[in-house]
Parts: sequence; structure tokens; C-alpha cells
Amino acid sequence: MRSSRCYSLDIKDYSASCSNKFQLDDVVESQQFDTDILNGIFEVAYEMEKIEKNSQGSNMLKGYLMATLFYEPSTRTRLSFESAMKRLGGEVLTTENAREFSSAAKGETLEDTIRTVEGYSDIIVLRHFESGAARRAASTASIPVINAGDGPGQHPTQALLDVYTIKREIGRLDGISLGLVGDLANGRTVRSLAYLIAKYQKVKIYFVAPDVVKMKDDIKDYLTSMGIEWEETSDLLEVASRCDVIYQTRIQKERFGERIDLYEAARGKYIIDKKVLEVLPKHAVIMHPLPRLDEITVDVDDDPRAAYFRQAKNGLYIRMALLKLLLLGW
Amino acid sequence: MRSSRCYSLDIKDYSASCSNKFQLDDVVESQQFDTDILNGIFEVAYEMEKIEKNSQGSNMLKGYLMATLFYEPSTRTRLSFESAMKRLGGEVLTTENAREFSSAAKGETLEDTIRTVEGYSDIIVLRHFESGAARRAASTASIPVINAGDGPGQHPTQALLDVYTIKREIGRLDGISLGLVGDLANGRTVRSLAYLIAKYQKVKIYFVAPDVVKMKDDIKDYLTSMGIEWEETSDLLEVASRCDVIYQTRIQKERFGERIDLYEAARGKYIIDKKVLEVLPKHAVIMHPLPRLDEITVDVDDDPRAAYFRQAKNGLYIRMALLKLLLLGW
Amino acid sequence: MRSSRCYSLDIKDYSASCSNKFQLDDVVESQQFDTDILNGIFEVAYEMEKIEKNSQGSNMLKGYLMATLFYEPSTRTRLSFESAMKRLGGEVLTTENAREFSSAAKGETLEDTIRTVEGYSDIIVLRHFESGAARRAASTASIPVINAGDGPGQHPTQALLDVYTIKREIGRLDGISLGLVGDLANGRTVRSLAYLIAKYQKVKIYFVAPDVVKMKDDIKDYLTSMGIEWEETSDLLEVASRCDVIYQTRIQKERFGERIDLYEAARGKYIIDKKVLEVLPKHAVIMHPLPRLDEITVDVDDDPRAAYFRQAKNGLYIRMALLKLLLLGW
Repeated sequence: MRSSRCYSLDIKDYSASCSNKFQLDDVVESQQFDTDILNGIFEVAYEMEKIEKNSQGSNMLKGYLMATLFYEPSTRTRLSFESAMKRLGGEVLTTENAREFSSAAKGETLEDTIRTVEGYSDIIVLRHFESGAARRAASTASIPVINAGDGPGQHPTQALLDVYTIKREIGRLDGISLGLVGDLANGRTVRSLAYLIAKYQKVKIYFVAPDVVKMKDDIKDYLTSMGIEWEETSDLLEVASRCDVIYQTRIQKERFGERIDLYEAARGKYIIDKKVLEVLPKHAVIMHPLPRLDEITVDVDDDPRAAYFRQAKNGLYIRMALLKLLLLGW
Repeated sequence: MRSSRCYSLDIKDYSASCSNKFQLDDVVESQQFDTDILNGIFEVAYEMEKIEKNSQGSNMLKGYLMATLFYEPSTRTRLSFESAMKRLGGEVLTTENAREFSSAAKGETLEDTIRTVEGYSDIIVLRHFESGAARRAASTASIPVINAGDGPGQHPTQALLDVYTIKREIGRLDGISLGLVGDLANGRTVRSLAYLIAKYQKVKIYFVAPDVVKMKDDIKDYLTSMGIEWEETSDLLEVASRCDVIYQTRIQKERFGERIDLYEAARGKYIIDKKVLEVLPKHAVIMHPLPRLDEITVDVDDDPRAAYFRQAKNGLYIRMALLKLLLLGW
Repeated sequence: MRSSRCYSLDIKDYSASCSNKFQLDDVVESQQFDTDILNGIFEVAYEMEKIEKNSQGSNMLKGYLMATLFYEPSTRTRLSFESAMKRLGGEVLTTENAREFSSAAKGETLEDTIRTVEGYSDIIVLRHFESGAARRAASTASIPVINAGDGPGQHPTQALLDVYTIKREIGRLDGISLGLVGDLANGRTVRSLAYLIAKYQKVKIYFVAPDVVKMKDDIKDYLTSMGIEWEETSDLLEVASRCDVIYQTRIQKERFGERIDLYEAARGKYIIDKKVLEVLPKHAVIMHPLPRLDEITVDVDDDPRAAYFRQAKNGLYIRMALLKLLLLGW
């Protein structure tokens, strides 16, 4: 179980990345993006930022209908997608707990559900509890599908917004120093981020994690094969003083089962607090995929280098960009 | 309990069908439609099909607000109604589990809820767990009410979309040969379909059902009284070779209680598969109200005669038509 | 527990009411309104009534996005707010059970949730199970927050619609005679209503409640300090014959725990029925915050003095007014 989770970012697929950067049919997994596509998406996201800030929305997607088909709840992700669609003038059909309530409970396959829902909408945003569900949905549907997280598998829009945030906050992606902190074994986001950032030049990555949740070998081997420098360390302050980006993550209690003692030990080990801010370079930023517990203390929030709420907001711009690209093209 | 369910399509009411075909105040039950009204609705549904396909929606219902008041979840039906409203430019207020969450839990009557909700909206789509709830709601409300299924009672928009699908697929309703297969005792849809199709000329109906879920006498007697030929048989292939429409249904496990053995026997008895396709006439179609389990094998899906996903889509057009008719008139 | 509930309308705060009637940043509690602000809001609500009745909605709030963040379900309140927003051309992001489904389940603070959601929307309507939650949200958010009920605390839009209904039905607020009936100990609405109506001149209040749920001393003392006449009595008919407004409330079963006997005794004691109508002045009205059980018999509903469904509808106008005022200003 554990192993299927941590290997869920299937890094062997990356060679199959889309060669035509101007054709985006679905958003299923991080592996489908090369740097050309990434940069293209980021340009559109930046336009979206201007659209959202300078006016009361847009009518770009007027008449389009998005179905948010969520087989497990994720209020944050759902609201972000729905806000993105509505900010562009589009409309939304929502189902927040498709698993419990829909025909799925009567034994209907995902494929049948997709073939019905595609008749009611123009694009499907799917959140599912099974790895691979988004890929199955995308190959069934005649309309675009966006993966909003499929179990232990992929959550590509989170990966995109993370990389976009680094670009927006630091101004570049090449040559970045990145400290990944916290639950590196189970964290889907840090694994995806490491995977995507490796596509850029002269990146340096530091892993700072309690022993029980260290980064797995597959990502390390992949980074090495890509010529990316990486280092494992337990000295958070040292890392903080050298990095452009500190990416903190929540230790996921649910992965520890009954070993609450191990969880508590891991949880308290690497905290971002005022002491970290003291050594962090002025231009650097702190990121976090949220929700946060106490792995970043609240007295850090007011520091201009605390980028995590801006990061959440970037999720809106990335999703606006993807909806625009999938429905209207580049 | 069982008997109240199977007699829930009260066939004695049909003489009370609406005499003025141009006045549609509510959609409560199949009995309210005569062939003139049916044909009128189907014409509007066909227009809706063109509206939905040729453009990015319509503004026909701009400014109108539909409340989907669902006391039991039915994601498919709800999304279909909400898509219909939004495709016509209208807006939606949604509550997916009114039973658990609303004032109903505090003991409020349906009538009081309706009188509150009618103040917030222009039309109410009601799904309820009690037979007769839609009729009570319609007589309380000063705005139109559409029955989206009331327990073991009625689901008239499903009945309408089924008949519309036959018309669209085969081109006519008079002279049709129809094979009803599967759970004919409990299936609300097949009972309503038999009831409505009997209004047309020279119809022939074949019943193909496991013994435990045979069609009840009330519908048989009604068909006889309407001069409709019907036949009970166990030879699915023979029926398939003679029919214009095979209407397959799911054996409803929940009706078998602890007799899983009976359920399994009934479930496997009549399957639509490649063998059925071989004998099915070229012009004929296979319908199913969905969700399906394995009573139609997936290798049938690609056959052009597999009409069930088109049928689901027709639900959208029928609901668009009803919303238009109830809010704007003919 | 009980005491924290009944003192939750913190009457000592009233002196801090907003002095600048033209600045409304958030709607958090009844205490923030003085009579100037109340009258200003009521004028806008009356305009909203005309907008809603004379046309198919408005585009006043086109491009604005409201997030309904409900940590406990309240379908009636939610639909009222969402209808208000949509009647003015605005759009809505909905989450009906944020408590169970959102990041809150993972331990995220309300403040962090607010900082995320404010990135996706222009105004937040918050329903929460904890007293004080709305105030915390409002001080965190950079966008307006409306309290749609925070546990045993405040429900200011209900208080506003109650006072507005008296004004609309009777034509004035000064000199009003008001009978408060039913659960006066636990009823958030009657406590807020007593508090707000005390701001007007020459008001007389009668309390009619079973002994176990009598009005608490804090409100009585406050009324006395404001120079408001009040009287406690058990003669409902006598009160009904003298009042402009009878405000009936539901005895809240959930407050009686296992003492069902006490609940049943309290519940049956003061019923509004035909006998009450016989003595009620012609110009007077009966109000109720809904949902109702049998504390008003249904044969009262058709009497023109039964104002409770009009009262519910006024909730729509008040909420339209508040959304307009918070997003566009006076």
C-alpha cells in the first residue's frame, strides 16, 4: 500500500511527454508537460492574473459548462476550479461526493458515468480515490478532462501551481535552490515538484525530512539521471540560509496508523518559525501546499516572504489558464 | 410494501389527462400527458437539441432561478436538470440532501418548505422519497413544480425521455414493437413506458423477465383495455429479432433483501450481448435507463444500435423543453 | 453550556455601535447596527423588493462571486443568500458541509481557510458552529464577511429581517406592541429581536413562555435600562388582543435532552390557532422564524395576518440589500 503510494508518480513515463506544445486535450499527469508547455501555460496564467485583478471577471468562457465530478471531497480544490470557471464567465455543475451518492453506489463504472456526464457539460474536472482514474476518464470522454487528484496518483494542477509560484516569486526557474521539507515520502506535491523542477537548468534540491518520511530513491535516482544536484540533510537552518525556496509540507498523520508516537516525533522536528526567517535570504520565499497545521508558525504569516497564500491564489490563475486552453485553445 | 410500489403508477387516473394541451402548469405524473401534449413537448425537445448543438447555449431563461430540492440524492437526474437550466441561460439553487440537512430534520412539513423555497426561486425541481410528494408540492406552490422522482411513485421526465428516444431513434411511435427486459415488477421506468406507449397505435409489447420480477397484472390489464397486443416470453433472442426497441433494465438488488441467490439467478438470466446484436434488426435500438451493471455487456457499446447514452442525453433535451414550457409557455 | 448560549447576545457591546452609518464592512452581529443604519438598510431592502418583483433580476452584482462557507448545514439560510446573490446577477461558490469535508477535518484553522477562500471570491457568507467565528473571520479577511449564524452566537441577518418585517407589515417601529411567545430562553431570534427593537421609541414587549424557557434576566435588564416597558404573562389571548405583532417560536426539543416530558409540556402550552386569530386586531400580524412544527396550526396560514412566509421572503430582500451595500456601498 505504502509503496504503491510513493511510486505513484511514475517517473518512467516522462519520455512520453507531449511533443506538440500547442495541443492540450486533457490534463492528466505531470509527465505530460515539457518546459515549452509549462512556459506556455505560465504565460496564460499570468494573463489570467491580470484579467482577475483588473476587472470584474471575463466572459471568455460564457456558455461553457464545467462538471466538477468529485468522488472524494476536496473543498479547497473544488472551490478553486469553480472560481476559475466563473471568473471567466463559465458555468458549473457540481457534485461533491459522487462516490457516496451517485450511481457509483449502484455499481456503475466510472466510464459509464463519464459518458453520461459528458452529455451534460463541456469539460469535466475529476477528483477520484483511485490512481489512474483520470487517465481512464480522459480516454473515455469526448470532452476535455482535468485531473483534480486521483487518489495516491497525480494532482497535476497542484504541481503546475507550485512551479508557477516559484517562477512568479523568484522570477526564474533555472538555477533555483529549493529546500523540500517535511513529509517527503508520502507527499504527492513534493514528489511532483521535484519531478517538474528537474526539467530546468542548474537546479539544486535539499531534502530535509524526519527519517521515517524521507524522500524515496525513485525520485533521487531520477534527479541524478537528469543531472540535478541534490542533498539530504537534517540542518534546516543551514538549508534555509542557502535556498531561494523553502517548500514546507504537513506530516500526514493518517499515514502513521497507530504509531502516534512516531507521528508526533516527526511532526515537531522541522518547524518554520521566526528563527528560520532570520537566516532566510531576503529574496527567498516559503511555500506550503496547505492545509497547514503548526509546521509553519502563524507569526511567520505576516512576513513578505511567506508565499503560501499567494501560492493558493496562483492555483486560481493556473486553473483559469487550463480551462481557457482546453476549451478555447492557445 | 411491495404491492404499493408496483401499483404506484395509478393507471385509473389516465382519464383525467389534461384536456388543454397548451397549458402546462406542473409536471407531476405520466398520466397528465395525452399524445397531443407528448407530441408538443417532443417538438420543443427537438428544437432544444438544435439549440444545444449549434451554439454555446441560449439566454432564453436568463433571469430565471430553478431550485433543485432533492430529498434523496440522484446525481444523474440532478445534473441533467441543472445542465438543462444552465444551457438555457438560467440559474440554479441546489440542495442535494434536503432530507438530512434541511429543516425537515426538525420536523418541518414539505408544504412549509415549499412555501419558503418558492420565495427564492421561479421553479422547483423536487426529488422526494415519498410517493405523492410532488403532487402535494405542486398544489402548495404558486410556481411550477417538476417531479424528478417521488419514491416508488412517479418519475415522469424519465418516461418522457424514453418515449422521445424511441421517436428520435426509430422515427415513429405508432406501430412500434417493444421488448421490455429485466426487472419488470419493480422497474418504475418500464411501467411508465408501457403506460405511455399504449397511447399510440398498433403497438406490440414483449415482456422478457425472470419469474420473480415479472410484469404485474395491472399494466397487462391496462394494455389489454387499450387494445395493445402484449406477450410474455422467455426467449430473448426471438424477441430481439422481431423488435424495433429492446429496453433493458437493471435487476434491482435492493428489492431482494437477503435472497441474494434469487437476485443472482435473476440478474444473469437475460443479458444483452453480441449474440443479441447478431439477431437484432439493423434499424432497431437498445435502450437502458442507466445505471447499468452487466445486463448489457460493454462490447455492445460501440454498436450504433446501442442508444442508451443518446437516451441519457435526450433527458437533457426533454428537461430543457419542460423548463422552457413551464416558464415561458408554448 | 446553557448559560453561554443564553448570554451569547452580548448586550454590553451595544455602545460600540458603528457611528458612521455609511460604512458597512462586514455584518457580524446585531450590536453593530444603530437605528440610522437599520433604516438605511431597510430602504435598500425595499428597493430590492421592487427590483425582484418588477423584473427578471438585476445585473447589479454581475462579475461578483460570493462564497457560502457553511460549517453546519442550514439549507433555508443558504438558499436565501444564494438566491439574493443570483437575483442581483452575481455568482456563487457553495460548500454546504465545510466542517466534515474541508481541510478543517485535517486541523486547518478557520483563519487559514478564510485566507484561502478570500482568494477565490469577493464576499464570504459564513455559517459556523462556534460563537465568535464570524468575528474572527471578519478580522482575518480582506473582503467582506457576513455572519449567517455562528453557533449559539449571532444570526444578524435574521434579526434584520425580523425588524424589517415589522416595519413592512405594520408600517412603523416606534410605538409597537410586541408579544414574544415560546422558547424565549434559547431562542436566538427573539433575543436579538428584543435587543434591536429596544432602539425604537415607546415599544412595549410581552413575554409569553413556559416556565422552563422563560426570557433571561440579561435581556429584561437591558430593556429596563433602555426605558422599554416589558411584562411577563401567561395569558396568550390577552396579549394577542393588545399586540401589533405576535412573534411565535418553536420549542427547541434538542435543548431538553432526555426530559421529553418537559419538552412535551412546554411545546403544547402556547399555540397560535383560530382562537388567537379571533382576538388578534385586524391590523396585527403573526410572525415566526421557521421552521414551524405545530406551534402555529396550519389553519392559520390562510389568514392575511399570517406573515411568516412573507417574513421568510423578506430575508431575501435584506440579504440582497446587504450584498449590495457590502459590495457596492450605499
